[in-house]
Amino acid sequence: MFFEGSEKKIELIVTPETPSLRSLGRPFWETMVGKAHAEILSSVSNDDCDAYLLSESSLFVWDNHFLMLTCGTTTLVHAATHFIDTLGTDAVAFLSYQRKNEYLAHLQTSSFEDDLKLLRQKISGHAYRVGHLDSHHHYIFYTDKPYQADPSDITNELLMYHISGDTADYLRSTGQKIEQIRQRLQLSSLLGDFAIDDFLFEPFGYSVNGIRGKEYFTIHVTPQEDTSYVSFETNLALTGQHSELFAALLHALQPGSWDIIGFNSPANTLGFPANHRLGLSNMTLEQGYELSFSHYQRCEHEYLLPTRL
Amino acid sequence: MFFEGSEKKIELIVTPETPSLRSLGRPFWETMVGKAHAEILSSVSNDDCDAYLLSESSLFVWDNHFLMLTCGTTTLVHAATHFIDTLGTDAVAFLSYQRKNEYLAHLQTSSFEDDLKLLRQKISGHAYRVGHLDSHHHYIFYTDKPYQADPSDITNELLMYHISGDTADYLRSTGQKIEQIRQRLQLSSLLGDFAIDDFLFEPFGYSVNGIRGKEYFTIHVTPQEDTSYVSFETNLALTGQHSELFAALLHALQPGSWDIIGFNSPANTLGFPANHRLGLSNMTLEQGYELSFSHYQRCEHEYLLPTRL
Repeated sequence: MFFEGSEKKIELIVTPETPSLRSLGRPFWETMVGKAHAEILSSVSNDDCDAYLLSESSLFVWDNHFLMLTCGTTTLVHAATHFIDTLGTDAVAFLSYQRKNEYLAHLQTSSFEDDLKLLRQKISGHAYRVGHLDSHHHYIFYTDKPYQADPSDITNELLMYHISGDTADYLRSTGQKIEQIRQRLQLSSLLGDFAIDDFLFEPFGYSVNGIRGKEYFTIHVTPQEDTSYVSFETNLALTGQHSELFAALLHALQPGSWDIIGFNSPANTLGFPANHRLGLSNMTLEQGYELSFSHYQRCEHEYLLPTRL
Repeated sequence: MFFEGSEKKIELIVTPETPSLRSLGRPFWETMVGKAHAEILSSVSNDDCDAYLLSESSLFVWDNHFLMLTCGTTTLVHAATHFIDTLGTDAVAFLSYQRKNEYLAHLQTSSFEDDLKLLRQKISGHAYRVGHLDSHHHYIFYTDKPYQADPSDITNELLMYHISGDTADYLRSTGQKIEQIRQRLQLSSLLGDFAIDDFLFEPFGYSVNGIRGKEYFTIHVTPQEDTSYVSFETNLALTGQHSELFAALLHALQPGSWDIIGFNSPANTLGFPANHRLGLSNMTLEQGYELSFSHYQRCEHEYLLPTRL
């Protein structure tokens, strides 16, 4: 029953001369998603964004940029190289490619180093790992073209491992109802005015995309006991009414450990459960992104039970 | 320059009817070591034990049991199956096979699950993982034959990751001297009356075996920046004059994190540097071994620097 929930992610901004990415149409994106060995399940659109729910995670397309996340053993790097081959490197203003901390890296079809080789055959850039190999870590490649990011171009990612408690139990149970999941994740109180598109997988697993104007959020739940993973990502600022958004999810899902990745967004740990911050890093990308990575473990983590193999 | 320092380990006790393992002679052990893709570099012997230093770790042979540790991409499981094929399963009173937490599991030629399949074709037993896949963890297989361990059959393992400080810097430097390493590891004050056999690898890396009667210790140093690993293992009790043995090594090598594995030996954290104990587990093996696993991270761990790839 093992499923690698942790995602690979590409975010790509095109140059002003490039036609709107949304005008490329669904068949273009279907082909690209197929290159990663995923498929489109459903979509929701507004005036600014087309949000596709995938068999493995999500794709958001705006006029001048797109964001694609895929989990499992998908080959997102092939979607990235397909895009570059099709539109040409001149269309790329900025590209970042990330790989999150995996449970079973040896079951993946490629390592980050392998992906890097493919990407560098197409476009030049810098690559880093943040965090030790024997603890949570994060990989990023990003292009080295001249580009200046808008300071309001922010991203907040919360990656939760080993969820526990009532909601975790419910997410692993049979006969789940999609309304119950929305309620337990507090979607209406936390993110009520977003148009949402969600999907309940068999026998379990849940994905939701939400959009509001140019804003998005996405949640992917891989509830499997022993290797559970829930990711949340948004371009909302974690201030004002959203200042305890991460805290609310942490209290609902009670992960044993979690990572936070931010672009141009200072860490906001307001209301977090008691934790050890095991690692912390900040780095400045030349294009004006402040990337932060931090890894937390809950205090009073559970007594470890041996897993029979 | 990556080298996987973390070891695979087999410990095997033969039945009373089996001839002395030492009488099998060096050619037998050379062949067995070869099955793991390692080789014998040197040896030291006393009335009770033959201790072989290997190109990748160590082999200790007593009359009725042996212990073999190999690191890198060695295939220790093939040495185990070769032994069983040669002497027969009836000669095996108790066998345990362990794999320690690896930095880059995907570079290994087999996973623990793969090894398990090979072992179970030869001999039946139980297998467990202790610790989460996204944190430090430890694998063990052990046979399910009737056997009663002597309570004095103890093992203490200290596995250190990300060593730092003066001694770590020295261990990474060029022109190291073997006497200096012994001194920095405090071998004479901590373990002075052991007969030792040690080896300094090029450009760095250090291994030492020590024996005193039936007692042994072994240390293996993989000092590589970013993926450093130092293991210490002994059958000495961590009491009396040895009650702060682990603490002394932790203070000398200043690891960022470490694991302790004990068989029939209560955890002794006397004198440890300030730490978070991130995981803890105890399990009882039917044959009378109390296995404990615990994972620690130093408090005030370093600020993480991104690693350029």
